[in-house]
Amino acid sequence: MSQVKALLFDTFGTVVDWRGGIARDAAPFLARHGVATDPQAFADAWRKRYRPAMKAVISGERPFTRLDVLHRENLEAVLRDLGADPARIPKAELDDLNHAWHRLDPWPDSIPGLTRLKRRFIIAPLSNGNIALLLNMAKRAGLPWDAILGAEVAQAYKRDPRAYLRTAEILGLTPEACMLVAAHNDDLEAARGVGFATGFVLRATEHGPGQTTNLAPEQEWDVIAADLGDLATRLGCPA
Amino acid sequence: MSQVKALLFDTFGTVVDWRGGIARDAAPFLARHGVATDPQAFADAWRKRYRPAMKAVISGERPFTRLDVLHRENLEAVLRDLGADPARIPKAELDDLNHAWHRLDPWPDSIPGLTRLKRRFIIAPLSNGNIALLLNMAKRAGLPWDAILGAEVAQAYKRDPRAYLRTAEILGLTPEACMLVAAHNDDLEAARGVGFATGFVLRATEHGPGQTTNLAPEQEWDVIAADLGDLATRLGCPA
Repeated sequence: MSQVKALLFDTFGTVVDWRGGIARDAAPFLARHGVATDPQAFADAWRKRYRPAMKAVISGERPFTRLDVLHRENLEAVLRDLGADPARIPKAELDDLNHAWHRLDPWPDSIPGLTRLKRRFIIAPLSNGNIALLLNMAKRAGLPWDAILGAEVAQAYKRDPRAYLRTAEILGLTPEACMLVAAHNDDLEAARGVGFATGFVLRATEHGPGQTTNLAPEQEWDVIAADLGDLATRLGCPA
Repeated sequence: MSQVKALLFDTFGTVVDWRGGIARDAAPFLARHGVATDPQAFADAWRKRYRPAMKAVISGERPFTRLDVLHRENLEAVLRDLGADPARIPKAELDDLNHAWHRLDPWPDSIPGLTRLKRRFIIAPLSNGNIALLLNMAKRAGLPWDAILGAEVAQAYKRDPRAYLRTAEILGLTPEACMLVAAHNDDLEAARGVGFATGFVLRATEHGPGQTTNLAPEQEWDVIAADLGDLATRLGCPA
């Protein structure tokens, strides 16, 4: 643990509240276009297409394609599922809703926690979000990243082992000098598989009040924290 | 000009003093190994091999190779030119001197100027330095970048037009929404060639007191500034 130099953060769910942010921006859009669905259910449905879309890239069926593009394709698909015709909605409105992923709010502890951690560690997202998405999000919200890393820089999506290994290599660090911080046990498992240190952060309402997954650590991760402030304390970063 | 959203900075010479930093770290190394050369002349000789090394990548003779690797090859070559045998110097010492490029100091106006510019613009390096080099430099010196961009992210070295165009594309911006800020007329010329806005910053002692190049703007660049504080003022960023 004392050899860890860089903390690399899963972002959607771990640092920012994607469900709340998407629901907030989708609500007026859905009302305007008469799509009869709850905005939070809409957020869930859109997010549900995320993993399958990346799978085609991870398997090599499809060349690396940035997440903004996958989100945009998934948006049209989810609208069709709900009986709306995306071809009848102005492109600028679809693009704007697609950029709701660039406008997600951090959890309340994220900025103070990251600010403390930054004094001692390199901090960067290791997210499947593309660079523009993560940069616009950070700029709007004030996330104090040292760099924007992740799938687009590594040209591989998590949980492909190359997403983690290439990130360490780009940083000029061994995997052991990198810690993945995530609210998702499977992400941590993949990171541990290539030698990363692991930090679990509990995000019990990422999927709303009825969440059933990732409510507890499923392995003995190197650090287990209640939020990013608690992580900073456990890693010895003064308040 | 009002459409500019991102300021992208050449780094070596424009933001940081590479000559002073390399000479500072080379001096004890050269003394220890009995290499009879002035540390500033050594910095100049090392830097002189920079453009030719990148040329092989730009021409396609060699696949993209990060700058840390090119610097390391050039270090051995310059030592041989000076009559020293790099094979007789411990690898850890060579690696450490190679990392002097990660430890360059900013010009005195760089951090206050960037801090002002960051309030209004996305700010990021668009340097030939690799990500680890630029990140370690920023972390040590306190450069407040929003993201670390440049050759390694774009997989192309300046002045290859793709270095600029891919950076704009990664940011989700048109070239016109990006301004290259540089102390080098040829860098600005290449950026203007692909549609970037251009900002010239005078660095009259980058090459020492006898500097003969880049002492004045050679075209009517969109902004011409005495330093990064002056650039912030000219771009309407309050002190």
